[in-house]
Parts: sequence; structure tokens; C-alpha cells
Amino acid sequence: MAHIDLGVNEKEFPGISGPMQFRPETAKPLNELAEVLLRSPNTLTSGERELIAAYVSGGNECRFCCASHSAFAAAQLDGGIGVVNLVVADPDAAPISAKLRALLRIAAAVREGGRTVTTELVAAARAEGATDIEIHDTVLIAAAFCMYNRYVDGLATFAPEDPEQYAKRAQRIVESGYGA
Amino acid sequence: MAHIDLGVNEKEFPGISGPMQFRPETAKPLNELAEVLLRSPNTLTSGERELIAAYVSGGNECRFCCASHSAFAAAQLDGGIGVVNLVVADPDAAPISAKLRALLRIAAAVREGGRTVTTELVAAARAEGATDIEIHDTVLIAAAFCMYNRYVDGLATFAPEDPEQYAKRAQRIVESGYGA
Repeated sequence: MAHIDLGVNEKEFPGISGPMQFRPETAKPLNELAEVLLRSPNTLTSGERELIAAYVSGGNECRFCCASHSAFAAAQLDGGIGVVNLVVADPDAAPISAKLRALLRIAAAVREGGRTVTTELVAAARAEGATDIEIHDTVLIAAAFCMYNRYVDGLATFAPEDPEQYAKRAQRIVESGYGA
Repeated sequence: MAHIDLGVNEKEFPGISGPMQFRPETAKPLNELAEVLLRSPNTLTSGERELIAAYVSGGNECRFCCASHSAFAAAQLDGGIGVVNLVVADPDAAPISAKLRALLRIAAAVREGGRTVTTELVAAARAEGATDIEIHDTVLIAAAFCMYNRYVDGLATFAPEDPEQYAKRAQRIVESGYGA
């Protein structure tokens, strides 16, 4: 049960959707941020950006966010949930591009703490072809999921067990985006 | 020097203002979130909410955010920077209300990781009169600064040494808000 009365049935509004119903004033910029970071036009595909979100959420052990963004990534990536699960477990062993692997290393550093991002990590991503915008967005996606994860778990929201529920939500996100 | 070329003079656009100039698309929801969380009408004063932001930023050792939000809190709190510095160092020793102290304990737990927020911490805040909205907003302010701090330091932005610069920015924030 959530730490506060969210005023909704938690089965119907699991994870972040409960607090978003409770406080629409903050839901608005939170959804807008997710939409820009994960879905607006970018040289990184939505699938790749959702993968960064899933990976960071896995590192933070946020079950709801990791399952959600793994499903959202799987719905938009060649390789589907198989590749996503490999990345969440260990990007070094996953069949992804060298650029994406280098960006995931930056994301892991951001998750630990901003100052652990080194010049070397950034140079390595750049050497694989990452642009300044891609590096910027990777840092901000990783940072943002350090927020979303803490928001979801800090209020002790409900995370469904059934993978089907996350797959259903993935369909809605892919079709209509965040905050629809 | 920042990890990427932000396209601005870092002395003129220190800390988060550099990446915000670089990427206005993400700056918009980031500023809106700060405005709602720290300045929109609330039973917690803006000073108290800025204090939570400063305290979390201090815990994350983000020099720019801690100095900024300490200045913003000081400009809006009785007791000024003296009380703010005491809170950032140790809320248990600072002359603040029992309710705010209990909320700062929740913020410290969120900073560590969402799942460290216990039923006991929430019950303790409620026993001091904290409402569900106040608990929600404390969790989200703490979570949001885990993002802002990582964004600012993950890109290695510039943090001025001179306290006067933070005080000047505080005046602008108090008068015009975030994103003005």
C-alpha cells in the first residue's frame, strides 16, 4: 500500500500513474519531460532512449519503472525483450552498437552520482560517434530516471507482477505518448 | 570546462543555466517542475521547500545546486543563511519546526534511494502534522533534486565561488520565478 492516500485504486493506477492522478500539477511537467526525452525527434531512436531508461531503473532496483521501460523499449527495438533483458543485466554482454554501449556507461555513472562522469567516459562515447546532444540527452535521461525511480518507490506505489500489464501499457505509450 | 560544448560563456551561464540554454526543449519542463514544486501555492512555504532542495543538493555534494537553493531559501526564510547552513549540515541540530525536521528525514531517505522511505518515517511526519500533499511534495522535491544535481554535475558545469552571484540569482528567482 502506498505511503499516502492517492485517492485511486492502485491496481488500476499502478506505479507512477497513482501519484500522477493525485497531483496533476506535477504530473504535467513530469510527462512533458518524458515525452521530450524519450519520444521527440532525436538521432537516438525511442527504443534506444527507453533502453537507457530501463537500464538506469534496473540499477536503481525500481521494479515498476524497469518493467515499464523495458516493455516500452522492447516494443520499439529489433530484438525485443530478449535484448532489453540482456542490456539491463549487463550492457557489455549485449548485442548493441558500440555507441549505445558507451552511452550506457555514462548513464551508469550518472546513476551513481553526477561527478562520477569522467572526461574519459565522454571521450569514449564521442569516439564511437556520439554527438553533444546525444551525450546531453543520455545524462538527462539517466538523471531523470534517478528522479522517477525515487518518486515511484519513495511513495511505495504498487508494481504489478503480470508482464502482460506492462506490455499493454507499452502499446498505449508507443501509440499516444506520455501524458495522453 | 563542461563535458560538451554548451555554446555559451560558462561564467555568464553557470550551473544548470548552461545546459538549459543548450537544450531549451528540456529546459521548459525542468523549469515548470521547479516552479510548481518550489513556488506554487502550498502549505509549505517557498523558503521551506527551497530548504529541502538545498539539503538534498548538499547531501549529493552538488556545489552549484546547494549554493543556489541555499541562497533561494535564505532569501525567503526568517533566520536567513545562518539557519539554512545549519540545516544543510545537520537538520537535527537546526532551529526548525518538528514537522519540517520530519520531512527532511524523508527527503534524506529519498536521496539514498526510494525504497529507504519507511512507514515509520512517514508516520513520524504525519504525527507532526504533515499532510499527504506535503509528504508527496517532499518526496518529489527530494527526487527531483537527485535529477537536477546529476544533470548539473554529470555535464561538469561551472559553479561560481563568489556567494554574491548566488544571492543575485536568488533575488531574480524570488521576484520572477523559474524559467522567467
